[in-house]
Amino acid sequence: MKKNSIGIGLIGVGVIGGAVARVLRDRSAKLAELAGAPVVLRKIKIAPIDLTRPIIKEFPAGIFTTDEAEFFGDPDIDIVVEAIGGEFPAFHYLEKALMAGKHVVSSNKEVVSKHAAELLALARKNNVGLRFEASVGGGIPLLEPFQYDLSVNEIKGIFAIINGTTNYILTRMAQEGIEFAEALKQAQALGYAEANPKNDIEGHDAVYKLAILSMLAFDTEVKPENIYREGITTLEGRDFQYAKELGFVIKLLAIAKESDGQIELRVHPVFLPDDNFLANVDGVFNAVLTTGDLVGDVIFSGQGAGPAPTSSAVVADVLAAAQDAASCVGNRMRWRLDGGKKLMPMSEVVTRYYFRLNVTDKPGVLAHIAGIFGDNKISIASVLQKEVDEATESAEVVIMTHPAKESAVQQAVEALRSLDTIKAVHNFIRVGI
Amino acid sequence: MKKNSIGIGLIGVGVIGGAVARVLRDRSAKLAELAGAPVVLRKIKIAPIDLTRPIIKEFPAGIFTTDEAEFFGDPDIDIVVEAIGGEFPAFHYLEKALMAGKHVVSSNKEVVSKHAAELLALARKNNVGLRFEASVGGGIPLLEPFQYDLSVNEIKGIFAIINGTTNYILTRMAQEGIEFAEALKQAQALGYAEANPKNDIEGHDAVYKLAILSMLAFDTEVKPENIYREGITTLEGRDFQYAKELGFVIKLLAIAKESDGQIELRVHPVFLPDDNFLANVDGVFNAVLTTGDLVGDVIFSGQGAGPAPTSSAVVADVLAAAQDAASCVGNRMRWRLDGGKKLMPMSEVVTRYYFRLNVTDKPGVLAHIAGIFGDNKISIASVLQKEVDEATESAEVVIMTHPAKESAVQQAVEALRSLDTIKAVHNFIRVGI
Repeated sequence: MKKNSIGIGLIGVGVIGGAVARVLRDRSAKLAELAGAPVVLRKIKIAPIDLTRPIIKEFPAGIFTTDEAEFFGDPDIDIVVEAIGGEFPAFHYLEKALMAGKHVVSSNKEVVSKHAAELLALARKNNVGLRFEASVGGGIPLLEPFQYDLSVNEIKGIFAIINGTTNYILTRMAQEGIEFAEALKQAQALGYAEANPKNDIEGHDAVYKLAILSMLAFDTEVKPENIYREGITTLEGRDFQYAKELGFVIKLLAIAKESDGQIELRVHPVFLPDDNFLANVDGVFNAVLTTGDLVGDVIFSGQGAGPAPTSSAVVADVLAAAQDAASCVGNRMRWRLDGGKKLMPMSEVVTRYYFRLNVTDKPGVLAHIAGIFGDNKISIASVLQKEVDEATESAEVVIMTHPAKESAVQQAVEALRSLDTIKAVHNFIRVGI
Repeated sequence: MKKNSIGIGLIGVGVIGGAVARVLRDRSAKLAELAGAPVVLRKIKIAPIDLTRPIIKEFPAGIFTTDEAEFFGDPDIDIVVEAIGGEFPAFHYLEKALMAGKHVVSSNKEVVSKHAAELLALARKNNVGLRFEASVGGGIPLLEPFQYDLSVNEIKGIFAIINGTTNYILTRMAQEGIEFAEALKQAQALGYAEANPKNDIEGHDAVYKLAILSMLAFDTEVKPENIYREGITTLEGRDFQYAKELGFVIKLLAIAKESDGQIELRVHPVFLPDDNFLANVDGVFNAVLTTGDLVGDVIFSGQGAGPAPTSSAVVADVLAAAQDAASCVGNRMRWRLDGGKKLMPMSEVVTRYYFRLNVTDKPGVLAHIAGIFGDNKISIASVLQKEVDEATESAEVVIMTHPAKESAVQQAVEALRSLDTIKAVHNFIRVGI
């Protein structure tokens, strides 16, 4: 049985929802041709406060509703598109839509990453599709390639710049020698950072996205709270100077690595060799490098946010759902969370480290430091010592290590901080990928 | 109605076919789980000569057949995978498979680019899928992202390094200052170039791939013979020296640009600014940069060839076809060729140019050259003049132009060649993208 027309119900008419509504309206001929049936925006569920938005005037008044029962109960809505963001009430809306037998499209990384297993089970149970291509990397093709093109591979690693706000800030800090606060202010002035930037600068946004990518790559449920997370707020101009001097750039990376059935998952700043592909991904651009056992390294890059790129991905998902709805196909997802891979505790992770310390400029201090590293079985690769302040007789010491275990490094930092001759452990940053 | 098991018939057991056969065998559990039914390699159609290949011993003897009627008539084969390459007999095999109601997967850029419209019509008529992800860029996700993720966009441009052989040769010439013949020899020694390298070095392979990408991007039939094509055989070490001096690298690019319903399509060497993303794609790597009106610039990159990456894409297609076959879904392709875009004649293309001339080292020669450029309304951006041979009183002149029309440049070249004072027009290469 074929359907004659596919009805869309959109939740939210903010920046993303508005862009989606316009694309659905303006490209209806193309969508009808590709889906095999007209794709009609039937209802937009809004909050009363949305009625003040200018976009409201662009659509017939009858399309808007604030009534949940009317919206989710509409039998002419085949596909529900959620574009409000955040965990709640989005999660309840997605639940209602799936339980009402609607195909669901979401651009909401927070709700998908936090409730993946429940949403997936509901979609399976109700035999409808659950799609969320726009939730990671905006318009960059990522989730469909992972599910389709790379599906036969064992994924060995993901190394990603997936937060445009922080990448913009880090790029400014590196290129202009400014401090974090100033770069953040510039990002806010340009609309690249929100008034409350916590979600981006503390790495939550990148964690949500890494959780989603990892679930697709490893077929294993990953809760955002189980991903190690550090933001970029403690980075200082001097770290960027040393990075440059040593042939590195600093990027906030989302990293997933699989070995022997264990996956390590972490989001934190990384000293990246300046000839690495990701080192040259600047400004608001995103890039995801993934390694499959058959395909080798594959790179995806583009603008990771913005209403137009995000609408590109949302409406691509709508189209796929519409094609299924038109031919009465239910859940076609290959996504499953029964891979049973174990998460490696962060304390077990092995990587190289960069340390920047402020020390008393006296003989024997380096020996003390080296002793602590040695006690914790951390092998030092190089030491840079610079006098920064003759008045206080203090010097800045930069140490690069060979690969060491995170737990040992944490112990060493604690020991360093207890030394009288160490005035401050300014920063320690993981090196390489 | 659901099928209990999906049968695969593979044509060819060479490098690609062999890799595909092994993946189908070794990952059968994963494929069954993802497809929703066991995916079983039932028959491999070979030529008698294939019986000498070592891989034959890896599979039960009964799986091989040289009998076309037996192979295409087997009712237990749901999906035919063609991995022999070349136009014939591949085209006849694909016709037979589609007419027999089999889903088809091909990794064969030549047959798909030359017979796209016929194959697509046959697939539609017989309500089966036709997939060819591996035909462009090996394992790099490209065709599925174009059909799925980017489907709502109007594609404005494609700029691609899609031939690993030539990119390897150009990388060696640039990095080591060697000439084409030497670089080709090295590529052949490493297995990156075939004994008969014509298909790659003269640009045919890139043309086939650009034709396929363009058909997906612009919904318009593109015949390979209608794409302007130049290979890399006339490039000389001196061109690379000048490129470097002027801040460029030389790459063989496949270019598609859309404007006002016209598309320009061309494959030729390009002087690319050295800070362009594609300028740093070296060796056998491929990269495709595409611009959509919603998504902006998106980049895909990875190894464009090799048995393992190619098998990754072929088996991804097999999996999609198997999923359709298992749920008795027929042709789901959105691909259509009725977009009606016109091809711009090469003579109308406007770009900048690099010229390298050998001239008599006498006063007035530059004035002659400038006069010819002026007569053809080509504006000169810069001139470099170097004495190369005092004995013959000749000098080398390098000219960079502002944007000019191809037809004017061709006329200017003809006029330059007729001048007594011009000993040779060594090369002229288009600049920028």
